[in-house]
Amino acid sequence: MIERYIAAALGKTKADVVLKNGSYVNVFTGEVEKGDIAVVGGKIVGVGAYSGEREIDIGGKVAVPGLIDAHVHIESSQLSSEEFARLVVPHGTTLIVADPHELANVCGIEGVRYVAEAARNTPLEVKVMLPSCVPATSFETSGATLSGADTERFIGEPYVWGLGEFMNAPGVLNGDADVLRKLEAAHACGKVVDGHAPDLSGQALNAYIAAGIRTDHECATPEEAAEKAAKGMYVHLREGSATRNVAAVGKAVSEKNFRRFLFCTDDRHAADIRANGHISNALRVAVAAGMDPARAVTIATLNAAECYGLKGKGAIAPFYDADIAVFDDLKEFRCALVLKNGKTVAEKGTALFDTGKKFLPAAVRNTVHVGQIAPQTFALRLKGERALAMRLTAGSVVTEKRVCRVESRGGDVVLQGTDLLKLAVIERHKGTGNVGLGLLEGYGLHGGALALTVAHDSHNLIVLGDNNADMAAAANELARIGGGLAIAQGGSVQSLAFDIAGLMSSLPAEEYIARSEKLYEAAYAMGVKRGFDAFMSLSFLALLVIPSLRLSDKGLFDVDAFSLVGIDAE
Amino acid sequence: MIERYIAAALGKTKADVVLKNGSYVNVFTGEVEKGDIAVVGGKIVGVGAYSGEREIDIGGKVAVPGLIDAHVHIESSQLSSEEFARLVVPHGTTLIVADPHELANVCGIEGVRYVAEAARNTPLEVKVMLPSCVPATSFETSGATLSGADTERFIGEPYVWGLGEFMNAPGVLNGDADVLRKLEAAHACGKVVDGHAPDLSGQALNAYIAAGIRTDHECATPEEAAEKAAKGMYVHLREGSATRNVAAVGKAVSEKNFRRFLFCTDDRHAADIRANGHISNALRVAVAAGMDPARAVTIATLNAAECYGLKGKGAIAPFYDADIAVFDDLKEFRCALVLKNGKTVAEKGTALFDTGKKFLPAAVRNTVHVGQIAPQTFALRLKGERALAMRLTAGSVVTEKRVCRVESRGGDVVLQGTDLLKLAVIERHKGTGNVGLGLLEGYGLHGGALALTVAHDSHNLIVLGDNNADMAAAANELARIGGGLAIAQGGSVQSLAFDIAGLMSSLPAEEYIARSEKLYEAAYAMGVKRGFDAFMSLSFLALLVIPSLRLSDKGLFDVDAFSLVGIDAE
Repeated sequence: MIERYIAAALGKTKADVVLKNGSYVNVFTGEVEKGDIAVVGGKIVGVGAYSGEREIDIGGKVAVPGLIDAHVHIESSQLSSEEFARLVVPHGTTLIVADPHELANVCGIEGVRYVAEAARNTPLEVKVMLPSCVPATSFETSGATLSGADTERFIGEPYVWGLGEFMNAPGVLNGDADVLRKLEAAHACGKVVDGHAPDLSGQALNAYIAAGIRTDHECATPEEAAEKAAKGMYVHLREGSATRNVAAVGKAVSEKNFRRFLFCTDDRHAADIRANGHISNALRVAVAAGMDPARAVTIATLNAAECYGLKGKGAIAPFYDADIAVFDDLKEFRCALVLKNGKTVAEKGTALFDTGKKFLPAAVRNTVHVGQIAPQTFALRLKGERALAMRLTAGSVVTEKRVCRVESRGGDVVLQGTDLLKLAVIERHKGTGNVGLGLLEGYGLHGGALALTVAHDSHNLIVLGDNNADMAAAANELARIGGGLAIAQGGSVQSLAFDIAGLMSSLPAEEYIARSEKLYEAAYAMGVKRGFDAFMSLSFLALLVIPSLRLSDKGLFDVDAFSLVGIDAE
Repeated sequence: MIERYIAAALGKTKADVVLKNGSYVNVFTGEVEKGDIAVVGGKIVGVGAYSGEREIDIGGKVAVPGLIDAHVHIESSQLSSEEFARLVVPHGTTLIVADPHELANVCGIEGVRYVAEAARNTPLEVKVMLPSCVPATSFETSGATLSGADTERFIGEPYVWGLGEFMNAPGVLNGDADVLRKLEAAHACGKVVDGHAPDLSGQALNAYIAAGIRTDHECATPEEAAEKAAKGMYVHLREGSATRNVAAVGKAVSEKNFRRFLFCTDDRHAADIRANGHISNALRVAVAAGMDPARAVTIATLNAAECYGLKGKGAIAPFYDADIAVFDDLKEFRCALVLKNGKTVAEKGTALFDTGKKFLPAAVRNTVHVGQIAPQTFALRLKGERALAMRLTAGSVVTEKRVCRVESRGGDVVLQGTDLLKLAVIERHKGTGNVGLGLLEGYGLHGGALALTVAHDSHNLIVLGDNNADMAAAANELARIGGGLAIAQGGSVQSLAFDIAGLMSSLPAEEYIARSEKLYEAAYAMGVKRGFDAFMSLSFLALLVIPSLRLSDKGLFDVDAFSLVGIDAE
């Protein structure tokens, strides 16, 4: 193949494809330059004056290297890997570094393998990180465990690019044996380890980095980002759906330190991607906040390639892979054309590849294992009239620990006339029968129940409702359809199946978005306050590492005390 | 070990070594910053306020990451790998990317292995490139060949870091099959390929890069360097003994493109290193020419590490290797202290490691294989009175092709009364008996002969003299001692053995330098003009790729016609 590159680069033979009459971002000079881009096979062979078997006039538009999302959980789109690709590729993303943390919590290594395999059906290149913190804590029941021994076993596999975000920062700083085993395993085979270290600074940050952790995507301020970059970390500027740091944290980027910054989305919803873009959206936000456009593009391409050792990625230059995104301009970043390995894969926002056939291995299907749920399951027996309750504030995932007064009758609490709802977390992986019960204040639902199988990080079955019958109906519906979202209202049930691990739908993106929106509207119609994300706000109530009060399948969890607690208050 | 890094970084335990009260170059911020540098085992674990089992006060001085020479032929020092290390490490160089091109021309893969093995005796880390162009041409007899098949066989070996400078640019642009085979082999195992492409630009440069060649150290102008960097090459700024490009070519470096530049020495003599430094010298020259000192240091460290995939190298930050050079200042770059893997290896210009015991495998010894040379060997029989002669200009390695008039008597030329000398290239690897004869004009030698076994690139035995008896005596002396430098004058002979492949001396550096200087003075005393490097100017007369007229063991070579020619002129 090199022979063909040489001949075409010399102009002795025609290139396969030439992008003509446009400009391009040269990530090596930091300038927007002119020149035809000549492609042979999957490689760029030269920029200059070239002719090709196929010539594409991109006059007036700007070519950039294919964008790289340096840290993303595909699961947050609630779409299959194939449909995720169909959403992001038309926005110019050609490679992602995916951490299938949620899939791994349900399916273990098979969830990791699923992402690696499914990616082969699409032009989106997916580098898969082995999740490092499964389960997140020992106070909940997850579908799977990835121990230090498992890490040693799998980290060297060819489908594993590195070790996923090391959320267990306390474990690192305490030198936990299993944590060290995971890190040593990654280092032994020279693989990148991603970090997750909100608020860490000074000597604690030194220690976290000295453990061999290379990146961080949790910076909340420019100062935090500047310190991490100064200590050699690669810092992801994150623009997700809920967490948007680019404008604020991007202020840390200077001409001297910019080679240590990356872009990522982390968690981004399907509808958001469709409407506002993907890494293209991060670029738009960065440039609007004052970042030089060519520098922003360099951060989204060459930097990510260097951080993750992605050979041949991240530049428009000879011998680089012909992964190219053409944008109308470097302000709005509307994507006109995408080439992957020299092939046109999207045009004017539309994917040109087929995602009809999905890879759906048995390991990620039928993952909801609960028996028939009786209404009585949700009876909440208190010793007195005072109980602990969670309260959510719109726009935050932190819960407040409240003590509320609630009456009981016939061995169950009386919710009527209160602002309280019952919350249940039903273990759904192993059929243990574990059910944790709690109270949520101020969410606004009336006359029914919501249920879902997306519940960070162990993804048990969460049910919220004001009556036991609807709660049982919603839970049983999810058991029937293998997980997803459900609403029960006076006996009538509607749902959307997440047939992949109870986390993601294999539907086409548009259909998923339409059906999901319908369910959300139904939830809001039942009184859920619009400040909340009707379903996904609930998914964080089982996440035991965020203050203050949480619920797992083992019961209420006091995050400050880091222990299970009873619901009865003094 | 990570456990110890973490504990020390946190300040829970003392570090092994702490550099106190100094400043350091932070290559991530491009600033000179303050802080104690804490080292545990071979790693830096943090910069901040630390205490250690051993504390070194570097007050007022500046620590930088260990310097990296990104392209060097150790052979040009004419010292063993061990003694080379003893010269460069005290100047702050802790890692070199070595291309044993000369050793390979004599000993083949065993010469490559020698460099890799000998390096283990010293704290200088040596990444060895597999030479790509052995022999340089087919018009000479080298000691060994490294074909495409050999490249396939050896490129994946653990002691091979990449493929050495691809001097055969025409072969690349012509798509020669054996050339492509070498390149494909390197790419197949993901190894770096170094370039050597003087004057290449435009589409020819695109083609050279499109073949997967990553670097170039032959830029003569800032414009050439800027084009190469803009096309994604890493450009070495070279400061050797003969070729000094840093001040001029360094002008191409800007705040936007600087991550694509490196420093190298390529070819640097032992005495020059001892007197003026190594990469430290390149830094001094760059800063004197106006380069920001922290940027210059970044180029000499982090950039080289990124180009060559040297994990853990190139920065003073947690989890980076504790390879540290401390300089008095960032102007003169006088080196006060060097740590390698956390151990003090040099102080105030003196190496603290023992190089007494040399690695001298049989493969690199006794490499001069010629029978007894009779004076009659050098009889030059002409058809008429007009002959081709080479003429050297001081300060250049280019030769002029001259036609001169010379008388003959008794089947040999008469040199008396002319400015001509006889030059012979005697094949010395395989005992073929090949002897090429030619004439050199204007060198100045009288009443004797010089001989040496350093003769680029095939390193045959070169003899220059004005009488056959002394020429034979000098050649026979080199055969006797296994190569090196020799002078014969009226039957008396003096010499310096290069017992390693006829290219390098295993003597201690100081003794080699003293004895070499003595021989040089003897040569100048015999009339060699001081504008020439008495021996080394001769070593290029057999280099068939530099204009205009050259001599190999197969005879005179016309570089412009790229063919052997007879000595008789019309």
